[in-house]
Amino acid sequence: MSFSEHFSIANIPYGIASTSKHPRSVVTRVGDSVVFLADLDLEASEQIESALSQPTLNDLAAVEKAELQLFRKHIQNLLSDKSTLSKYGVPIDEAQLYLPVKVDGFTDFSCSKEHLLNASEAVMGKAFMPPAATYLPIGYSGRPSSIVVTGTRITRPYGQYRDGEHIGFGPSRALDYELEVACIIGKPTQLGDRVSVADADEHIFGLVLLNDWSARDIQGFEMNPLGPMNGKSFGTSISPWVITLEALEPFATKPPAKDLPAQPYLLDKKEKSSYEIELKAEVLTGSDVTTVCQAQLSWMYWTFRDLVAQQTINGCNLNTGDILGTGTVSGAGDDEHGCLLEMTKGGTVGWKTTNGQDRTYLKDGDGVRISGYAGDGVGFGECVGFIDAARPF
Amino acid sequence: MSFSEHFSIANIPYGIASTSKHPRSVVTRVGDSVVFLADLDLEASEQIESALSQPTLNDLAAVEKAELQLFRKHIQNLLSDKSTLSKYGVPIDEAQLYLPVKVDGFTDFSCSKEHLLNASEAVMGKAFMPPAATYLPIGYSGRPSSIVVTGTRITRPYGQYRDGEHIGFGPSRALDYELEVACIIGKPTQLGDRVSVADADEHIFGLVLLNDWSARDIQGFEMNPLGPMNGKSFGTSISPWVITLEALEPFATKPPAKDLPAQPYLLDKKEKSSYEIELKAEVLTGSDVTTVCQAQLSWMYWTFRDLVAQQTINGCNLNTGDILGTGTVSGAGDDEHGCLLEMTKGGTVGWKTTNGQDRTYLKDGDGVRISGYAGDGVGFGECVGFIDAARPF
Repeated sequence: MSFSEHFSIANIPYGIASTSKHPRSVVTRVGDSVVFLADLDLEASEQIESALSQPTLNDLAAVEKAELQLFRKHIQNLLSDKSTLSKYGVPIDEAQLYLPVKVDGFTDFSCSKEHLLNASEAVMGKAFMPPAATYLPIGYSGRPSSIVVTGTRITRPYGQYRDGEHIGFGPSRALDYELEVACIIGKPTQLGDRVSVADADEHIFGLVLLNDWSARDIQGFEMNPLGPMNGKSFGTSISPWVITLEALEPFATKPPAKDLPAQPYLLDKKEKSSYEIELKAEVLTGSDVTTVCQAQLSWMYWTFRDLVAQQTINGCNLNTGDILGTGTVSGAGDDEHGCLLEMTKGGTVGWKTTNGQDRTYLKDGDGVRISGYAGDGVGFGECVGFIDAARPF
Repeated sequence: MSFSEHFSIANIPYGIASTSKHPRSVVTRVGDSVVFLADLDLEASEQIESALSQPTLNDLAAVEKAELQLFRKHIQNLLSDKSTLSKYGVPIDEAQLYLPVKVDGFTDFSCSKEHLLNASEAVMGKAFMPPAATYLPIGYSGRPSSIVVTGTRITRPYGQYRDGEHIGFGPSRALDYELEVACIIGKPTQLGDRVSVADADEHIFGLVLLNDWSARDIQGFEMNPLGPMNGKSFGTSISPWVITLEALEPFATKPPAKDLPAQPYLLDKKEKSSYEIELKAEVLTGSDVTTVCQAQLSWMYWTFRDLVAQQTINGCNLNTGDILGTGTVSGAGDDEHGCLLEMTKGGTVGWKTTNGQDRTYLKDGDGVRISGYAGDGVGFGECVGFIDAARPF
């Protein structure tokens, strides 16, 4: 399936683009056409009108959910008319895509029990469930400044790491990807406010794919006890199209049953509180493509509704444009490891690309493509990044 | 000493304030007078002129250091004239002070070896130096959204915590402060760039006091292995006055000798790379004041120059307004514990306020005041916050 099929008229995602004729502003995508929304004859509020000419989606994302839902329906109706679409559509090859939101806050959670077990086994030789992980979605604050849009090249980071008995310093020797999905916050909250699981969707503008590039050697040395920092903060890629919860609603599904009774603030009465989204990670080596993971978002033990409730139960405020990530999406199977740390058991088990090259972690020049598809013409497209060699020190 | 003595003509800090006659914009402070810089007849560049009317210091902070230094000298000369000061000065009681910068990124490091040893002993019963802590300044990304200015009330957070054999949910029962100093980034960097320790001062706009409020029970349960999150993200207070490195230069001093040879990127040829700043934390109970900690910034094992180098060695980009904190500033003595976790050995050893009240951690209504003084009329003033009861769930 080509990625253009992810963007049927049922999708109507939001993004930010420019062309030689259009300044950087709000777009949607249908097939391989990009439509600048300010070009359309939309009867929208002043708030939305003004938001459409902004260089990020933040102003649009902050609009009340009910109004946004009507607005999206309206776009959908207009662009269902093929002559309107062909009049306003710009070939996607002529458009430059940008980071869709200005990100003020980034939290990466760890929603996959399989990832937690596999990753700890890879690192420590023994599967270990973190003490809080089945009571609440554990997570950490990530670095907002280095979040970049698909296509941005990632430079191999320098850092300190264990090297046998010694501590080494140099380019990371264990560069990894992490297959993730993330929600982007729309409606903000005030410091002190809590958002219940029931109200969480009101605050979620939509979802994107996320690749949480990780330098496992740097991360492994630094993270006890304050968590990952330099092993992650050199770059995080997201996909350019924000897929709305409305487009995903037909693919709503139940999350796994909980092992423990949930605390009241994580008790969700909505049965289908997750989404069935088929995710894939591929390593790109020259013209060669090797699928390294296929996994389902619905395997995640915690949902985005849970993440919003967890982030705010202590009164922490949400800003429009904040990103909350799932952490690595993994399953139990051998082809369901959402990162190379798991797949190579900490870099000890090699694998071959489809054209026969040896790999454990990523080499300079390698790329990683993450993609996600819900069904019936609704998908995320791709999130791609290639590795540049470290800059000499 | 009254706090007005912290702000002699030798200081000239930057802040953001408004009055009934002045919109929110850039100010300095001399004694108990606030001066709106746009009121002065300053021969400044267009970039600076425009920055002075902004509601945050970010635009001013982004100006090149050499130009900023001349600009500050110019203010200092003008305000040395008592008639000019009395013409333009506004009594500080008539001014509303604001968060001085829009914070895009917040990293809190852990620069005090004494804090690491004391805190781990309090939590685990055994002093433990984290494996990387003497090789590099360990740290974690904090939550930028909940950084607030002095005077903002802090609401006791809800969360999950260990309660004997069970996991409880409710208002934190172990609310703590952390005495810290932080630098505010001025000149930004691009993704991929590194800043050497030698160049770090070019990127530091100035220093503030920081209180990293911490819910020890929530933090203790959540932080293995991803670090602290909800135990911290309910609020972080900073002082309103950004003290420049130029004002602090007379108090430059040597940091402690390193235990290990530093990796090349942390090898600082500047001998006096730290500052002699006397810090104090007081708990305020009604009209009563109890000093709980006195400590020196110069005891910190890592300097702000080290923190900037560490943050960027992996290519992570800095934005203007980013905050890098020292972590808890502690010493070896019993009256030198920069947080109650240390002072009460994890809440097990009680203490008395000067008017005889019993405490371990903070109670609702308690306040914490942090202050810092370098000398010769150069200080930070105060960073204060009071605890409100948890909002019912």
